Amino acid sequence: MSYVSVSRLRVPPERTDELVAAFRGRARLVDDFDGFLGLQVWQSDGDAGELLMVSHWRDRNCFRAYMRSDEHQVSHDRIDPALARDINLVKLEHLQTYAVVAT
Amino acid sequence: MSYVSVSRLRVPPERTDELVAAFRGRARLVDDFDGFLGLQVWQSDGDAGELLMVSHWRDRNCFRAYMRSDEHQVSHDRIDPALARDINLVKLEHLQTYAVVAT
Repeated sequence: MSYVSVSRLRVPPERTDELVAAFRGRARLVDDFDGFLGLQVWQSDGDAGELLMVSHWRDRNCFRAYMRSDEHQVSHDRIDPALARDINLVKLEHLQTYAVVAT
Repeated sequence: MSYVSVSRLRVPPERTDELVAAFRGRARLVDDFDGFLGLQVWQSDGDAGELLMVSHWRDRNCFRAYMRSDEHQVSHDRIDPALARDINLVKLEHLQTYAVVAT
């Protein structure tokens, strides 16, 4: 039906607002990509330092094409280095991907 | 912005199709609930026995009202007992909830 990628990010609680602001001000380079259906950032109710970046795609191939693109690299390179260090410090969890199988 | 609940379900691989079919044939009692925005079932790309049930809500209160409702109970009671046992065997992971903070 469609395809979803989920990245779980952990940041120190004091950097959460900064990370959310970064997402709100994102470059939106992905938005015009073939097969891109939308992106949301979810913040855990019980643990403010846990955020999920959830992106929807028409299918797996569209997602993979984006992941290999210059636009993806440019979007990542825009992240403030100090913030990126803090995200890295707590380690980006391995990306997980899903097929939407029912609605 | 809105509110999301995620339930991670594990089933033995041989019951996956049955669980997906159960979701596709769900009673849809939730669909008319105040504040319900949508439900998707995601199946892991790398691990077919892992499924996420993801539901979107206008806000936390709408979600909580549904969780306390008769409709929620009725929907659960419709699950085939043999399938329900297998879901329980591998244990339903604690429900996680998120606020949508950026798009």
